[in-house]
Amino acid sequence: MKIVSSILPPEALREEVQKGFPQAEFLFYKGIETAGESFYDAEIFITYGEDLTEEHIHKSKKLKWIMVMSAGMDEMPFKACKEKGILVTNARGIHKIPMAEFALGTMLGHVKQMAALARNERDEVWDRKLPMEELRGKTLLVLGIGAIGGEIARLAKCFGMNVAGVNRSGKDAAGGDRIYSISQLSEILPKADFFVSVLPSTVETRFLLKKEHFAAMKDSAVFINIGRGDLVEEEVLLSVLKTDQISHAYLDVFANEPLPKAHPFWKMENVTVTPHLSSITKNYLPRSFEIFKHNLHTYIKNNKDYINVIDLERGY
Amino acid sequence: MKIVSSILPPEALREEVQKGFPQAEFLFYKGIETAGESFYDAEIFITYGEDLTEEHIHKSKKLKWIMVMSAGMDEMPFKACKEKGILVTNARGIHKIPMAEFALGTMLGHVKQMAALARNERDEVWDRKLPMEELRGKTLLVLGIGAIGGEIARLAKCFGMNVAGVNRSGKDAAGGDRIYSISQLSEILPKADFFVSVLPSTVETRFLLKKEHFAAMKDSAVFINIGRGDLVEEEVLLSVLKTDQISHAYLDVFANEPLPKAHPFWKMENVTVTPHLSSITKNYLPRSFEIFKHNLHTYIKNNKDYINVIDLERGY
Repeated sequence: MKIVSSILPPEALREEVQKGFPQAEFLFYKGIETAGESFYDAEIFITYGEDLTEEHIHKSKKLKWIMVMSAGMDEMPFKACKEKGILVTNARGIHKIPMAEFALGTMLGHVKQMAALARNERDEVWDRKLPMEELRGKTLLVLGIGAIGGEIARLAKCFGMNVAGVNRSGKDAAGGDRIYSISQLSEILPKADFFVSVLPSTVETRFLLKKEHFAAMKDSAVFINIGRGDLVEEEVLLSVLKTDQISHAYLDVFANEPLPKAHPFWKMENVTVTPHLSSITKNYLPRSFEIFKHNLHTYIKNNKDYINVIDLERGY
Repeated sequence: MKIVSSILPPEALREEVQKGFPQAEFLFYKGIETAGESFYDAEIFITYGEDLTEEHIHKSKKLKWIMVMSAGMDEMPFKACKEKGILVTNARGIHKIPMAEFALGTMLGHVKQMAALARNERDEVWDRKLPMEELRGKTLLVLGIGAIGGEIARLAKCFGMNVAGVNRSGKDAAGGDRIYSISQLSEILPKADFFVSVLPSTVETRFLLKKEHFAAMKDSAVFINIGRGDLVEEEVLLSVLKTDQISHAYLDVFANEPLPKAHPFWKMENVTVTPHLSSITKNYLPRSFEIFKHNLHTYIKNNKDYINVIDLERGY
């Protein structure tokens, strides 16, 4: 059983994976080009999902299963995989821990005045009069209450926050105290202290939040976007923030990334810019390989117990 | 029933308290000097505990109960209170929420590289290569695992951290996975990623952490002190940090406060200075008055159901 990977993990992780499956021959390469001809005999292929073409799939001789170590799969040649009956699984779900920690860290940083404290430290100023607040008792609205949003909701509830969620259906999901549908948004907007969006970019979510939604929020509201930059039209968000309609925006995602030099967001007092890294973590590969190992056991036993099987028709 | 307060809360809170007890006459003053003669007829006195002298107690005519809206009571004339059989209660326990949130915010800020992200934002640098980590799976040692430490432990466990605690006895307390006594400290020092101290200043805790304790910690260890500044001799901590024996110290408390201008801690790269405000919160007075109201109901009903009765012999 030949397993080719176009991802080259650190040695310790490679050894651990190989040791768990002595019957398999693992070949790890940095990039599919480095793998060269080796790819075409692989029975199993491990990839970030950005390097496979239709030609790769068509020319492959023994390929049965592709493990995509990512959640985004926009560049996967699903049609060719389907034609050749190749199983595709991915690493969906491994973003929830880093993203939820990032969201909570951002909210705590806000109530604990971390930015002002850092400025005071730089100026050697001892000021105990900062308006220190708490998460406890505050209301959080999570936009997109799936796996990631649910983990954010769970942690927020540990802190004694009131949590509401928004999803497509408005049906109850785990974690949120109350779930609203997108069309019911106006009910909850005036009540929330924090808004965290983890929404992906889809036809439904593109420019979903409009001027009037922000107008309905509290003046003290905090907007945190760790989903996708096209949730709000940039001009709308700029205008909302320039006129102080809300208190602060923490933006990890943007319409154009990297955020261009000299973009007004960089210098605005009530905007905090981070470079689309809420999901980044040193544990990314170890955690993806946990899913891979589970699925490889399943593959070897030839049963149905796979994690994250992709429907090749729908593409997710 | 005359109730005098040397604390002047905001009007809304004063009204709420008065409304709850129509049978009582409340007189709120800003400072005991402003109360003047009014103090001497009070049956109940509300104070931060820093304004009462023995003379006040001796000259008081009807004083039965003092509610101290604080946890520290170093300046309370306990002997005189005991002689006159005056009940003393305090607001112990209200620090746990702000302090635990501050501790978690600090740990999350550390793993999520918030300081580096803020520097990059200032310089308009989009850098996604920062070593983003997680709290999940990391080990936290809480020094002083009482009410505050227990709340820190509870939250840390919500994040999937391994939590150990240190207290005087080494006996199990709520919240920690394993409790060590102070003498067993060397066992756990090499295992922890984060050290959070909430220890008060006592004969036993003064200069408790020594050079050799820091030497036993991981190079990557993070030390967070929100207890008291005399837990470590300042020269020891300076030397530990100058020689990078640990990764970072977050210091909210110091031997001398305010931390003097030009003190090396202000500018050290691996030290973050905050001005002793981990326990500060807008909710301080409302929460203290919740305890007061409970105790006033108890006082009126003349039963034993008081919260936080002080042993006047021991002083806590």
